[in-house]
Amino acid sequence: MLKGLDPALTPDLLYQLARMGHGDKVVVVDRNYPAYAAGRPVAHLAGIGAPAAVAAICSVMPLDTFVPSPLAAMEVVGDPARPAVTAEVVAAAEAAEGRAINVRWIERFAFYSEARGAAVIVATAEARPYGCYILTKGVWPSFTPPTP
Amino acid sequence: MLKGLDPALTPDLLYQLARMGHGDKVVVVDRNYPAYAAGRPVAHLAGIGAPAAVAAICSVMPLDTFVPSPLAAMEVVGDPARPAVTAEVVAAAEAAEGRAINVRWIERFAFYSEARGAAVIVATAEARPYGCYILTKGVWPSFTPPTP
Repeated sequence: MLKGLDPALTPDLLYQLARMGHGDKVVVVDRNYPAYAAGRPVAHLAGIGAPAAVAAICSVMPLDTFVPSPLAAMEVVGDPARPAVTAEVVAAAEAAEGRAINVRWIERFAFYSEARGAAVIVATAEARPYGCYILTKGVWPSFTPPTP
Repeated sequence: MLKGLDPALTPDLLYQLARMGHGDKVVVVDRNYPAYAAGRPVAHLAGIGAPAAVAAICSVMPLDTFVPSPLAAMEVVGDPARPAVTAEVVAAAEAAEGRAINVRWIERFAFYSEARGAAVIVATAEARPYGCYILTKGVWPSFTPPTP
């Protein structure tokens, strides 16, 4: 345990997030996703669903404000419906950011392609299909030491 | 940059601190110390002195409350004087903990021996001799998500 850090942030995940700069991407995927196919580092969050994973990531990682949307979600194949899991993920990101987040929807194979350029793939325990997201890191200008 | 985290916490150092549990030790050393001799992982903080390194570590790592002293300092060989750098390090630890910290003084070779059991050696840019410390990690019971 570290002070002020979500326990879902494993050492491996924290390491990968700290290595990233603005514009770098984190891919958060459900438990059926081919996490290793992208050839990028994979951080496993056993027992953590996609909304809780995004909440943990966004508790330390600022989202990009230079792009139209810092949060992309996989489209359901052949169905314009928006999955409930995505509504929960967006709510988690918005709560951490304190602002409305515009979702960018991506077709399944375009998502796989974009994942190959990510800094890290976060393999969650999310059971719901299409619980797959791409988050773009932003800048964080200041640091104030916490008071005990 | 990550939200709320001291920029002195490099990815390597953050990773090592996150891996540690209570009772595990971080050794913070000056720039003349044989950092690799202990055979433990070494995290380099270029440009950061010992007090700033301890402030950064203690901004996320709770110090142990189960031992008489969670902060040990190297004694000056042949001189009972207490170095100024150590006073600054103690002040940094006390500010982060919000409590008085009792310093345990260690003879030079006993320090080297104890360092061999550490989780990580933090090699700072501290120029002042005897700027060498052993911090013991404590427990952190709770986590509250930060508000944006």
